[in-house]
Amino acid sequence: MRRLLPVLAVILSVFFAGPAKAETGHDLWLRYRPIETQHRASYAVSQWVMPAASPMLAAARGELQRGLAGMLGAAPPQVQAVSADGALVVGLAASPLLAPLALPAPGREGYVIRAARLNGHAVTVIAGGDEAGVLYGVFAYLRQVQARQPVADTLSAPRNQLRLLNHWDNLDGTVERGYAGASIWNWPVLPEHVPRLIAGYARANASIGINGTVLNNVNAQAAILTPAYIEKAKAVADALRPWNIRVYLSVRWSAPIEIGGLTSADPLDPAVKRWWADKAAEIYRAIPDFGGFLVKANSEGQPGPQDYRRSHADGANMIADVLKPHGGIVMWRAFVYADDPARDRAGAAYREFVPLDGQFRDNVVLQVKNGPLDFQPREPFSPLLAAMPKTPLMLELQITKEYLGQKTHLVYLGAQFSEVLQTDTFAHGPGSTIARIVDGSLDGHRISGIAGVANIGNDADWSGSIFNQADWYAFGRLAWDPGLSPRAVAAEWAAQTFTADPAFTGPVTEMMMLSREAVVHYMTPLGLHHIMAHGHHMGPAPWDAIGPREDWKAVYYHRATKDGIGWDRKASGFTAQYKPPLAERFADVATTPEDYLLWFHRLAWDHRMPSGRTLWEQMVARYRQGVDEVAAMQAGWAKMRGFVDAERFAQVSDYLAIQHREAIWWRDACLAYFAQFSGQPFPKDYAPKYPLAVYQAMPAYASPPP
Amino acid sequence: MRRLLPVLAVILSVFFAGPAKAETGHDLWLRYRPIETQHRASYAVSQWVMPAASPMLAAARGELQRGLAGMLGAAPPQVQAVSADGALVVGLAASPLLAPLALPAPGREGYVIRAARLNGHAVTVIAGGDEAGVLYGVFAYLRQVQARQPVADTLSAPRNQLRLLNHWDNLDGTVERGYAGASIWNWPVLPEHVPRLIAGYARANASIGINGTVLNNVNAQAAILTPAYIEKAKAVADALRPWNIRVYLSVRWSAPIEIGGLTSADPLDPAVKRWWADKAAEIYRAIPDFGGFLVKANSEGQPGPQDYRRSHADGANMIADVLKPHGGIVMWRAFVYADDPARDRAGAAYREFVPLDGQFRDNVVLQVKNGPLDFQPREPFSPLLAAMPKTPLMLELQITKEYLGQKTHLVYLGAQFSEVLQTDTFAHGPGSTIARIVDGSLDGHRISGIAGVANIGNDADWSGSIFNQADWYAFGRLAWDPGLSPRAVAAEWAAQTFTADPAFTGPVTEMMMLSREAVVHYMTPLGLHHIMAHGHHMGPAPWDAIGPREDWKAVYYHRATKDGIGWDRKASGFTAQYKPPLAERFADVATTPEDYLLWFHRLAWDHRMPSGRTLWEQMVARYRQGVDEVAAMQAGWAKMRGFVDAERFAQVSDYLAIQHREAIWWRDACLAYFAQFSGQPFPKDYAPKYPLAVYQAMPAYASPPP
Repeated sequence: MRRLLPVLAVILSVFFAGPAKAETGHDLWLRYRPIETQHRASYAVSQWVMPAASPMLAAARGELQRGLAGMLGAAPPQVQAVSADGALVVGLAASPLLAPLALPAPGREGYVIRAARLNGHAVTVIAGGDEAGVLYGVFAYLRQVQARQPVADTLSAPRNQLRLLNHWDNLDGTVERGYAGASIWNWPVLPEHVPRLIAGYARANASIGINGTVLNNVNAQAAILTPAYIEKAKAVADALRPWNIRVYLSVRWSAPIEIGGLTSADPLDPAVKRWWADKAAEIYRAIPDFGGFLVKANSEGQPGPQDYRRSHADGANMIADVLKPHGGIVMWRAFVYADDPARDRAGAAYREFVPLDGQFRDNVVLQVKNGPLDFQPREPFSPLLAAMPKTPLMLELQITKEYLGQKTHLVYLGAQFSEVLQTDTFAHGPGSTIARIVDGSLDGHRISGIAGVANIGNDADWSGSIFNQADWYAFGRLAWDPGLSPRAVAAEWAAQTFTADPAFTGPVTEMMMLSREAVVHYMTPLGLHHIMAHGHHMGPAPWDAIGPREDWKAVYYHRATKDGIGWDRKASGFTAQYKPPLAERFADVATTPEDYLLWFHRLAWDHRMPSGRTLWEQMVARYRQGVDEVAAMQAGWAKMRGFVDAERFAQVSDYLAIQHREAIWWRDACLAYFAQFSGQPFPKDYAPKYPLAVYQAMPAYASPPP
Repeated sequence: MRRLLPVLAVILSVFFAGPAKAETGHDLWLRYRPIETQHRASYAVSQWVMPAASPMLAAARGELQRGLAGMLGAAPPQVQAVSADGALVVGLAASPLLAPLALPAPGREGYVIRAARLNGHAVTVIAGGDEAGVLYGVFAYLRQVQARQPVADTLSAPRNQLRLLNHWDNLDGTVERGYAGASIWNWPVLPEHVPRLIAGYARANASIGINGTVLNNVNAQAAILTPAYIEKAKAVADALRPWNIRVYLSVRWSAPIEIGGLTSADPLDPAVKRWWADKAAEIYRAIPDFGGFLVKANSEGQPGPQDYRRSHADGANMIADVLKPHGGIVMWRAFVYADDPARDRAGAAYREFVPLDGQFRDNVVLQVKNGPLDFQPREPFSPLLAAMPKTPLMLELQITKEYLGQKTHLVYLGAQFSEVLQTDTFAHGPGSTIARIVDGSLDGHRISGIAGVANIGNDADWSGSIFNQADWYAFGRLAWDPGLSPRAVAAEWAAQTFTADPAFTGPVTEMMMLSREAVVHYMTPLGLHHIMAHGHHMGPAPWDAIGPREDWKAVYYHRATKDGIGWDRKASGFTAQYKPPLAERFADVATTPEDYLLWFHRLAWDHRMPSGRTLWEQMVARYRQGVDEVAAMQAGWAKMRGFVDAERFAQVSDYLAIQHREAIWWRDACLAYFAQFSGQPFPKDYAPKYPLAVYQAMPAYASPPP
């Protein structure tokens, strides 16, 4: 012991010498902090057995080692065969090690965790249906331990085959609609250098079941398909592969012209198809498990097959044909509204795509945003989702909060994602949830999937704020199992990210669930939509009436005049795009939920609400409620100080203060604007602080003082 | 001891549990790692005395505590009065504690470090001429210890009063010419939240003597002057103030129109002046020590006083007048070339500004780029620097490597900065160095200063690469003392950043010094300039001939035809802008250094060089030499593996591999292009790998495979 003392002294001096480790949030929910004394017995591991003969199994084993070492103080001994009770045994379900247990078959990417006996000892088994299943089983086990959940008998396999992030990352390092710094891909240093962030990104995604990533912006640059960039994508793919993540690319329809030297991008031109076939072959030589292409065509100015009087199906099928021999797929975005804005942009995608149902190749999947418009705080679901039974439909959700407060607002999107997934479309009668459409079970599709527009950048905390991490987390968990309760997902995230103490996770989960309603209230209550500032979409601008297109203006959507507000979307033909009974329900004011009221109806300002208030009074009340809810979130968080390190606690507190200031801005700016038309006074105890002109004159990204 | 064991065990388990700390480079040169055993005695501190009754002194004391704790294992006891030999005593030179020592006066921002006796004990004293001097003295002491230099008798004060970083950061979080991620200011979270990066930034700057920062891009947005952004700037200023760093802002000339509601920005319009006076008063209410404004006017499309037929002096003086009562200054940029490109852009600033010498208020300083063009790898100095004796001139250097390989190339700019500063302009005969012009000593100016365009972003390593940090470091050190040897600065940076072992610092310093010559050789040898790709300036494009202005095209600068290459700048009138004997020297091929040959002269391809080679042969040789020099840097770095942690070693190795690939790209693309005109063959052992068309077709930021 005496001889050890100087050694210990040196170790301790090193340990205490540096500044305390800054809690930047960089470790996400994979913190693996030591288990509290009272919980140690529940998670004790005497030894572990885990053969790893492949890069993916080695990745899983490394993660388990890291997790056990962190949480147990030191990793227990790794042994070749079980020789003690309390062992952890990990491997393929069909391996010689585990086959004798005759576990239920976990299936593709699935895993089983359960108690068993091996070599006469009581053990815990993590068995994967395949290598990916082992990886996901390890992460599930670590999640259970970190969240201080019982290490339960678990059998789990993903409901969706494709669980993808879409990065709207440009080749110059900027991120469209990104609020977390610059692109993590760091193109200039690839392929020679694989940035360290990529390994962390891969682990985080694997921990929540994400198995694919589209590296570049859907507003794609042709250059991504040049040899230099294929080399870079290959370097990323090589780094992600051990974590069961495939790489996909967004492609620009006119690439054959821009970088191929052709004069046309007509999908029926054999030279064009040959160019794409050669390009696909080139990519698959570099990346044998390349996933496929994501295409934004004839949408918001992007080129597409319609430039050559061909349909979206013509375009998608041509690309599908060249990818087919390699096993690749085409994800073709249905976010189009190129037709006449006078016809109601909300219905444009339906009009365009429904007639094409049944015309797509079997390796085409349509990627459809959850709402008919564009990632608003709350939208009715896109009727297209219920109207193309012969076509696999991927859901596109937005994890980055373009319209929901961007970097700073605490808005837990798990609640929104789950609401969307559990929505019944009545496509084939009751029970036709969006979850069942996108997982392929409703119509028996071979391809299923969900894509989320990533909120990831090179900020130390990855997502721009600690709580934005929860949206990434919830996306992955719900893509794996859309049936999970968003509240449970919030709780397990909070437990892993901060502390599993129920005195913390309880109130914080409530705060997260409330946050989603709060943002709807202070931004767009009663079915209002797209009244955000022009272009950057940060802050209120119901007065916005600039720009080249009618349907890029706020006034196009709310239509407020002295006569009323809202859009009669029965008259526009939009409600008829829904299946019965929704078409009728949304067409009738009396049966339309308040949440969608002004989305579907144009109403007088003195329209009487079920609450007894006039429409105007209800609008004022909801905006005020939203601000009050943010104040409640602030008060709730203030009580959590004792549970959270100072740096992360302060970030959340400060951002909530920003959210409160900006919620007031939203409330006051919108009500000052709509008051011009309402013909009714403000309540006695409320008025916007400034005249409307002050709000209208604010520069981008800035509110007036509250 | 026994009772301590469990405690130690817990501590050790925590310590060993986490993953090894990633060496991201985030600690910059302020690492404070434990001193090696053999050096401990030299730097032993028995106790320390440091009163700190102000935020700035508290910042200095905190840094000393951090440094001593890190390097000595634990900080020695802090005491009220010296009671032992080997004490460290820190304070104001004029304080009761130190005044009895009758130290030489350190002056404003200056400090003294020396051995002394206090209370009968041998002590080391750090005495500041003012609080900033204490801060800088502490950092100087820590630098000496970290670099394992003797803690020498030092008396130091800055040669330049203004030592500023210019951030070309936009309000949307992007950084113009930034290659290190997004802006560290993080505008959306201010003022409620001061991002943690700002404290690290402040410490790093203070450690090298930087005392001011211009927060936003010289291509300024008017919004920076709105109340919301002034509040944000105040939050930054409050965070930087304890580190002796003042905040400045770039302003947009037309702000009175854009955000002030005026119809004019005419500097002679009393309403305009009143608007600026009110705005200045508003800023100084929020930031009492606000530094002043940086103005880019009538330059590259920016508005300015010439829009109203007023001169730059009219504009600068109006702003100066409104800042004067508050003690603020105007930094007016001389980077203008608005007149006819046919007249040689290189001479434009001189033509515009020299006639205004003597017309500026005494709180105006002109900010002049080092070269007449724009931050090329090597340029002759701007003749304007020697031609305005009645006007204080600030030097503008570029730390971010817009034209020098951007993120990845290892190019040590300390060598370039020092070359500029030591250049003799002959403004008042021999010895009229640029250092003496900008420090005010040559012409007796009250204001002196140097500005550097920052290379800082939110990348974990701050500057996009570990070695880019050296450029930030060298800028600060040379701004403090332009007489420092760039080699010595490189060595002290390398010692602090990696290890002070001379077996490392020796070869690495040589590599850094070589790197600056290498980039000139592989990009723009023989005085070539501005043959970079259009717009983004990454990679070679001597063929570039697109764009709205002649002087934005590469062909405007090199003028290569079959008859020859280069620009006869005697004929253009440019050489006459230099003072004798330089005007004559640069006008004559025989006396023009090879470094500037094609800058000043148009020569036939078979022009005979002093080496005996033709011009073409010399060009080929220089390009090849540049590639060889990068290969030598790679080989040199490969031998340093044992001295550097794996992560930083790999980053440097990988980036050198990129630099080598891109140096080959530069060599081959440029020579393939110029070969069209040279009429001479390539040497037997060399040819570009690809036809010229391949290089011309490369997408942005990408080279063909080497």
